[in-house]
Amino acid sequence: MDFEVLRSGPPAARAAAVARAISQVENQRPGFEQLLAAAHRYVGGARRVGITGPPGAGKSTLTQELVRHWRGQGESVAVIAVDPTSPFSGGALLGDRIRMEGVSLDREVFIRSMATRGSLGGLAASTREVCDLLDAAGFARILIETVGVGQSELAVTGMADSTALVLVPESGDGIQALKSGLMELADVYVVNKADRPGAQNLAREIEITQGIRRGEAFRGIRAHHGRALGQSGREGGAEWQAPVILTTATSGAGIPDVAAALDRHLDWMTASGELVTRRRNRFAVRTREVLDRMVQHWLREETRAEELLRDRLDEVVSGRLSPYELAAEILAVVKDGARV
Amino acid sequence: MDFEVLRSGPPAARAAAVARAISQVENQRPGFEQLLAAAHRYVGGARRVGITGPPGAGKSTLTQELVRHWRGQGESVAVIAVDPTSPFSGGALLGDRIRMEGVSLDREVFIRSMATRGSLGGLAASTREVCDLLDAAGFARILIETVGVGQSELAVTGMADSTALVLVPESGDGIQALKSGLMELADVYVVNKADRPGAQNLAREIEITQGIRRGEAFRGIRAHHGRALGQSGREGGAEWQAPVILTTATSGAGIPDVAAALDRHLDWMTASGELVTRRRNRFAVRTREVLDRMVQHWLREETRAEELLRDRLDEVVSGRLSPYELAAEILAVVKDGARV
Repeated sequence: MDFEVLRSGPPAARAAAVARAISQVENQRPGFEQLLAAAHRYVGGARRVGITGPPGAGKSTLTQELVRHWRGQGESVAVIAVDPTSPFSGGALLGDRIRMEGVSLDREVFIRSMATRGSLGGLAASTREVCDLLDAAGFARILIETVGVGQSELAVTGMADSTALVLVPESGDGIQALKSGLMELADVYVVNKADRPGAQNLAREIEITQGIRRGEAFRGIRAHHGRALGQSGREGGAEWQAPVILTTATSGAGIPDVAAALDRHLDWMTASGELVTRRRNRFAVRTREVLDRMVQHWLREETRAEELLRDRLDEVVSGRLSPYELAAEILAVVKDGARV
Repeated sequence: MDFEVLRSGPPAARAAAVARAISQVENQRPGFEQLLAAAHRYVGGARRVGITGPPGAGKSTLTQELVRHWRGQGESVAVIAVDPTSPFSGGALLGDRIRMEGVSLDREVFIRSMATRGSLGGLAASTREVCDLLDAAGFARILIETVGVGQSELAVTGMADSTALVLVPESGDGIQALKSGLMELADVYVVNKADRPGAQNLAREIEITQGIRRGEAFRGIRAHHGRALGQSGREGGAEWQAPVILTTATSGAGIPDVAAALDRHLDWMTASGELVTRRRNRFAVRTREVLDRMVQHWLREETRAEELLRDRLDEVVSGRLSPYELAAEILAVVKDGARV
């Protein structure tokens, strides 16, 4: 795959080539690591945004409206919808995808759902790799949307440059998010369905929570934040203060504010050096993932591990030998025989 | 921990000791692998049942009623509720636990929730280990209940001797389950909320699906199954035919039938040799899991992998070297230097 050509070529050809490449990577077909290695030097141009939050918060609609907004500014956009849920929820996700058809006929918009195959760890790793493919293929924006269950919320924040946490009034989500540690990971808060009662209260709750987290005095925060509420956080400065944006995604209200807040966050990341740090960490995580996968392959295919397991499994079944003792013995043999 | 004493000691002491041991294993505190190795030779007495199905199918109520049923027969029961979902659903799960308090004051009933910490893969491995602890501690029955999202449904079938799939009428679950491959993993089907319209239809749908799966003629199945519908599957014989049981868990109706079907399944497993095969596979999976964990620890702590990663990460960040090339280089060094 010629990434130079892809980046300058016609959108339709790009979409087709990217779709093929994603399938190769998802299924780990021969050559997928070479493909990703070739993509690597083109990675870094895309602005990656994670959209997370509980089910029903309106993430899909928000995603769709952000796509529309950026397309209106002439930017190419890729959307990855990550679904770590059971096949039982397949119907719900499919519904979201169909709703997103409003933007999916546009050739400069690439939409892909990624579902669990095998393990969730595998899904996160695959999603990271697909992000890199889309980045290398020249998409200006990559939106990573989660369906809002599983560990995906936490994983997505590690994939994105900026993460928006979408909450809705009167669902108790604020408190759940607070408990979960997700609050700390959000760069922008979106209070969606802001036409409902309680939106202002939720926004204020978030702002207060943030103040408590930073250890500021209660009185001080309220005074400081009251002004900016629903519009934007503090710009510049040493520390990023995640703004709370009120939106009604179904009508498009507040969408330009979310887009602007995300841009401000990326500008702050660039200026503060945080972007370099985050991307550096991301590459370290990626390398460890690839290494673990390679080590596991080596262990199964090129060492005597499986042979030893087969030979001594009867002893484990009978209770004479524990899996822990057998694993330790296999590891010792593998370590000893590694120099081949 | 003295498993001999635990198995014959008073219930309260057992519950306390088991709770401590579980915490040690969940948090992988020093000595946890020795503890599990010591437990290993006492493993194998418990009958392990997985309860799976979509959210809202009534799994918790069914679990509670099964506990009550077995307690009524004088058996000790342990329940593990596996929750791989986001913190957002914490409230729902908590509600289920509170409802289960009807049986939780009984000292011969041990109830434990296991939530995701870090990775889902880690949760499955921990749950398998906790099952072994409970088995070694002498509980006669272990119920593993999932909250019905994520990969937990598939994982749980690998942990249990028998798996009950709980579905409810008129939710489209039948079709989803069929698509998901879960149908094939169920040993007993439970159509819960059988007082609702559509229960008989769902039961028939499942039976037809099963027939199709086995490649039988459509006409033949209907004739054969119509008789047994809602009561039991075929007993004995070379192949297990998963029965469809109608229940109304809230009233307790059908619970003894589910318990009986699970017992028949275990009897069939024992007679056919399938139990030995399943448990053998389980020990192989366990040993590979432990080995992978040990290898990862070895890689991070005892080899130069992390040092090499640190030294060359700048090249990855700048795009000169891809994570795939760096990982391959590190693996080569590790393999070469393993004999230390």
